[in-house]
Amino acid sequence: RYGEIESDDQVGVVTGLAWTDVGGELLTIEGVMMPGKGRMTVTGNLRDVMKESISAAASYVRSRAINFGIEPPLFERRDIHVHVPEGATPKDGPSAGVAMATTIVSVLTGIPIRHDVAMTGEITLRGRILPIGGLKEKLLAAARGGIKTVLIPEDNAKDLTEISDAIKGGLNIIPVARMDEVIANALVRAPKAIVWEEDTKLPVKADGAEEAGSGLTAH
Amino acid sequence: RYGEIESDDQVGVVTGLAWTDVGGELLTIEGVMMPGKGRMTVTGNLRDVMKESISAAASYVRSRAINFGIEPPLFERRDIHVHVPEGATPKDGPSAGVAMATTIVSVLTGIPIRHDVAMTGEITLRGRILPIGGLKEKLLAAARGGIKTVLIPEDNAKDLTEISDAIKGGLNIIPVARMDEVIANALVRAPKAIVWEEDTKLPVKADGAEEAGSGLTAH
Amino acid sequence: RYGEIESDDQVGVVTGLAWTDVGGELLTIEGVMMPGKGRMTVTGNLRDVMKESISAAASYVRSRAINFGIEPPLFERRDIHVHVPEGATPKDGPSAGVAMATTIVSVLTGIPIRHDVAMTGEITLRGRILPIGGLKEKLLAAARGGIKTVLIPEDNAKDLTEISDAIKGGLNIIPVARMDEVIANALVRAPKAIVWEEDTKLPVKADGAEEAGSGLTAH
Amino acid sequence: RYGEIESDDQVGVVTGLAWTDVGGELLTIEGVMMPGKGRMTVTGNLRDVMKESISAAASYVRSRAINFGIEPPLFERRDIHVHVPEGATPKDGPSAGVAMATTIVSVLTGIPIRHDVAMTGEITLRGRILPIGGLKEKLLAAARGGIKTVLIPEDNAKDLTEISDAIKGGLNIIPVARMDEVIANALVRAPKAIVWEEDTKLPVKADGAEEAGSGLTAH
Amino acid sequence: RYGEIESDDQVGVVTGLAWTDVGGELLTIEGVMMPGKGRMTVTGNLRDVMKESISAAASYVRSRAINFGIEPPLFERRDIHVHVPEGATPKDGPSAGVAMATTIVSVLTGIPIRHDVAMTGEITLRGRILPIGGLKEKLLAAARGGIKTVLIPEDNAKDLTEISDAIKGGLNIIPVARMDEVIANALVRAPKAIVWEEDTKLPVKADGAEEAGSGLTAH
Amino acid sequence: RYGEIESDDQVGVVTGLAWTDVGGELLTIEGVMMPGKGRMTVTGNLRDVMKESISAAASYVRSRAINFGIEPPLFERRDIHVHVPEGATPKDGPSAGVAMATTIVSVLTGIPIRHDVAMTGEITLRGRILPIGGLKEKLLAAARGGIKTVLIPEDNAKDLTEISDAIKGGLNIIPVARMDEVIANALVRAPKAIVWEEDTKLPVKADGAEEAGSGLTAH
Ligand SMILES: [Ca+2]
Ligand SMILES: [Ca+2]
Ligand SMILES: [Ca+2]
Ligand SMILES: [Ca+2]
Ligand SMILES: [Ca+2]
Ligand SMILES: [Ca+2]
Ligand SMILES: [Ca+2]
Ligand SMILES: [Ca+2]
Ligand SMILES: [Ca+2]
Ligand SMILES: [Ca+2]
Ligand SMILES: [Ca+2]
Ligand SMILES: [Ca+2]
Repeated sequence: RYGEIESDDQVGVVTGLAWTDVGGELLTIEGVMMPGKGRMTVTGNLRDVMKESISAAASYVRSRAINFGIEPPLFERRDIHVHVPEGATPKDGPSAGVAMATTIVSVLTGIPIRHDVAMTGEITLRGRILPIGGLKEKLLAAARGGIKTVLIPEDNAKDLTEISDAIKGGLNIIPVARMDEVIANALVRAPKAIVWEEDTKLPVKADGAEEAGSGLTAH
Repeated sequence: RYGEIESDDQVGVVTGLAWTDVGGELLTIEGVMMPGKGRMTVTGNLRDVMKESISAAASYVRSRAINFGIEPPLFERRDIHVHVPEGATPKDGPSAGVAMATTIVSVLTGIPIRHDVAMTGEITLRGRILPIGGLKEKLLAAARGGIKTVLIPEDNAKDLTEISDAIKGGLNIIPVARMDEVIANALVRAPKAIVWEEDTKLPVKADGAEEAGSGLTAH
Repeated sequence: RYGEIESDDQVGVVTGLAWTDVGGELLTIEGVMMPGKGRMTVTGNLRDVMKESISAAASYVRSRAINFGIEPPLFERRDIHVHVPEGATPKDGPSAGVAMATTIVSVLTGIPIRHDVAMTGEITLRGRILPIGGLKEKLLAAARGGIKTVLIPEDNAKDLTEISDAIKGGLNIIPVARMDEVIANALVRAPKAIVWEEDTKLPVKADGAEEAGSGLTAH
Repeated sequence: RYGEIESDDQVGVVTGLAWTDVGGELLTIEGVMMPGKGRMTVTGNLRDVMKESISAAASYVRSRAINFGIEPPLFERRDIHVHVPEGATPKDGPSAGVAMATTIVSVLTGIPIRHDVAMTGEITLRGRILPIGGLKEKLLAAARGGIKTVLIPEDNAKDLTEISDAIKGGLNIIPVARMDEVIANALVRAPKAIVWEEDTKLPVKADGAEEAGSGLTAH
Repeated sequence: RYGEIESDDQVGVVTGLAWTDVGGELLTIEGVMMPGKGRMTVTGNLRDVMKESISAAASYVRSRAINFGIEPPLFERRDIHVHVPEGATPKDGPSAGVAMATTIVSVLTGIPIRHDVAMTGEITLRGRILPIGGLKEKLLAAARGGIKTVLIPEDNAKDLTEISDAIKGGLNIIPVARMDEVIANALVRAPKAIVWEEDTKLPVKADGAEEAGSGLTAH
Repeated sequence: RYGEIESDDQVGVVTGLAWTDVGGELLTIEGVMMPGKGRMTVTGNLRDVMKESISAAASYVRSRAINFGIEPPLFERRDIHVHVPEGATPKDGPSAGVAMATTIVSVLTGIPIRHDVAMTGEITLRGRILPIGGLKEKLLAAARGGIKTVLIPEDNAKDLTEISDAIKGGLNIIPVARMDEVIANALVRAPKAIVWEEDTKLPVKADGAEEAGSGLTAH
């Protein structure tokens, strides 16, 4: 049942919205975190622009890590894999960037993503959200797929007037300008910011600086 | 006798099902584990989509390692090689993903795979199983090759009605939706989950964090 | 509202000026700094010449680090990501080099960039500024976009006579020959040079030499 | 006298059998071992399928190292180079895999290879031997070249009936199904298996786990 | 004013001579040195042959380091970036090799290069200078650009008879056969050779051998 | 005077023989050694087959290092650069392999190569010498260039009968079958073999095993 709405809220599983020649469709994106060394793997027959959107999303999250309650050293001790099924279908474009950032925040914080929320939007390094194409088709796919809430770029809000109520009727459409708003609407609970101080008093090893004092436990 | 059913249950040897212009056939997939540094090698004239399916399968296993009784540090101390004979034939597509995950679990746990089970299905990072093409041809190849049990994606179960009993008759066809079910049916015994706690009290070295305090023995 | 003037002064966000077949436009460039190992990531569908301009800008900043008050070891303990939205549009050419250097200095010093300043110019390793094309179109875009001050290469100053006052009227156009002048005009305050001495008395580890004795804190 | 039978038994020098448009020929393959860090170099104008056959052969040997009396840490302290003269001629295909595995075992154990033995066959990761093409031409080349014993894949044994006694007459043709049989027939003496235990009690360094006193147990 | 003579003697800035379809021109080449790990970066839209000429120049300098008073460990503790503006113009050919070696010696020794000297010539690993094409056009560009002294390959000296005095008149043309002569003529003062002894008595770490006992200070 | 005979015996400088559409010519090959980490750089517009011949030559020398009096750890503490001027001319083929091995032995031992010796021949990993093409043209180039001694592959000796005495008259032509003979004829003095024992009693570090106990000094 790939390409349909998920049945429960899961960590790292987010519903994006794709736009192809034959219309819009739900695009499930999966992220997982593993013990590792800071490697990022991306698969799913992704072309360069979509790969770069994941890179930008990851740097946005890394550079704001403490806002999401993520201890910076965690990035160097975990590998992350983002995969977009179905592997036989090529995928491209920047419009899944917002979804990519959401899955990365989810896997790093362990906070599930609401399964009845879908989203579309290009992300910038600062977490700004840029407009996308195919809004009508994407909303139609969301409505058909049982989605309740759709996050769209604020700059696309003006396009809503051209879309019939038959499509918009059952959807809670929320225009968003920044990732903060996406995180607030998509995660089942809000991440809590932490304070982090790079300890410079202890003798630090070049490659081990970030390791000291962390307290992560995986069960 | 490559491309025929294996004669005994072996660690790391799984029977997939391929679909080509000239019909279906058994696809033996081999995995081995070696002392190493966490490298993954894939050979057998594999094209990008099949390579990515191995990557997704490996991350699925790594991110659920403790469910299979695999201590996470093992990944950084072993190399894994997955090979699909025959080297002269190009191979592509995502439908061997489920078989790839099975061979990886088998080599890491040391539990053999039933030689009379064949399987087909795309895997996602969470271990969900996506539908595949060529079901009829694959089942025919399984029947001809002496396979007893075939694991197919649950989303392909609806296609079974179009397939004659002449083909289905001698086969135990099991639709599966998640890797859990595949592992339960394909391995000769079930892996046992472990509890794993990343010890943060000991002074850890940057690249050695996963090494400390582990007590791994491979038999 | 990408491609419009920023509403406040931010660290790492600079306004460049692009020139395309359909005229000039504002080009927002974003940089962020993260805990890391000295890696530089560049995204935004950038072609080789623009990528090289970022490389040259980065080496200019690294080789003059102490002039900007940046402790040299910082480079090996941070990753920097420079991104040029919008990801679907290919971008090339050397003329954003001056803007690239400005964003790198900003993220490393933490000093914001004036949001009402735009700039264009190729940079050399020594911080010299080389002339660019499309001056008229770029100035028009700056004026239309609400920019107050535009930094242009000194070698383009002679081209100003051919540009009407209607375009130039509301703009403070400053010809610049060196990055010093750019930094002085674009940052909200001047970086302060430091003295740095590579301590050779302490026992140093091959890969850790730059780590000892630094005092950076990230909140 | 490249392409002719070797005059004495040497470590790392094995005679394969190639099949080209103009017939079969002897294919000398050379391997050497050097102090190093576990690197594998392959040269001789080899195309991808032949390169992969060397990779598979190497993993077969590594994963069975103790069966051949090779201490696993040796792999990380040695570099191996496999070369197929003549460098101007492109070479491809999987059928030299068996010969590749033989040369790797020989250089790692220091046991010479019989100079009057030739071999052909694709190897799998488990050391199974898959059938090849051009059997008749290869046997003709072996006979002409003064070879006494030829190891062929068991699955090609059925093809022997179509080959005249004029070709087969002077040759000792041995069908083989597994690498064990190849090693037994090709090396001048049999390698002796060892027991190896991965010591997990000693404090281990991340990248040195396998080096210190050794610590791995593979049974 | 790129492509014109520099106004003062600078470290790492050298004037080469390029030859294109539309004539000769001055080619400013810039080098900078930064704290680092021995990386060499080359930019400026350089094609393979010019990139290789920088590689050869760098190895010439490294292999003769003590002749120039450069302590060998410096190479592993510094990064060097060589850039040839203007980034939009592709550049190729080996004839800037002599200039590349000169800029590398200058940045490593800190000795400025005379701004009124231009040079052309292919360099070999031993510092031999090979002949180049376009001598007449290059000399014309030098004369027009205000250059006083031009270093040309000795093997091109025979071509001078075909060039008019109008071009040669104001230039001091010095044929050179070896880099020694180039360094003597191009740097504002001569580097002083040092004696260097690799200390083998101290316990050395594999990757840190060159670090011990050095005494470099950067202000 | 590139492409002519060298005027004195130098370390790392060897004269090969090339064969092109327009005849044979002398091919000066240069090698230098630098403090480093075991890197090998090859330049001079070399195509893949010639690059591989350098790789094979290097492994031949490394695997026989003690026969040439080279302590194995030296390879991990030095970088080697092999360059074939003139950089603008593409070069390919395996026939310079013998010359490549000679220059590598020379730079590692510090023993000069006779300047009046030229050589041609493909090398194998064991130091065997395979036949080459263009013998007549190469000998003509050697004679014209003032070479006294030419080393040719033994398997080409039969071709000498077809070459006129006008060409052969002034040359001392020595057919060689193995690198031993090349080294004996090309170096100004014979390298002396050493005994080397890898000390296995001391606790060894993974990456530092070869470092212990060496005693190299570079002046
Ligand atoms: Ca779909
Ligand atoms: Ca989307
Ligand atoms: Ca088959
Ligand atoms: Ca399959
Ligand atoms: Ca735009
Ligand atoms: Ca610009
Ligand atoms: Ca041949
Ligand atoms: Ca063969
Ligand atoms: Ca110019
Ligand atoms: Ca030049
Ligand atoms: Ca020539
Ligand atoms: Ca040659």
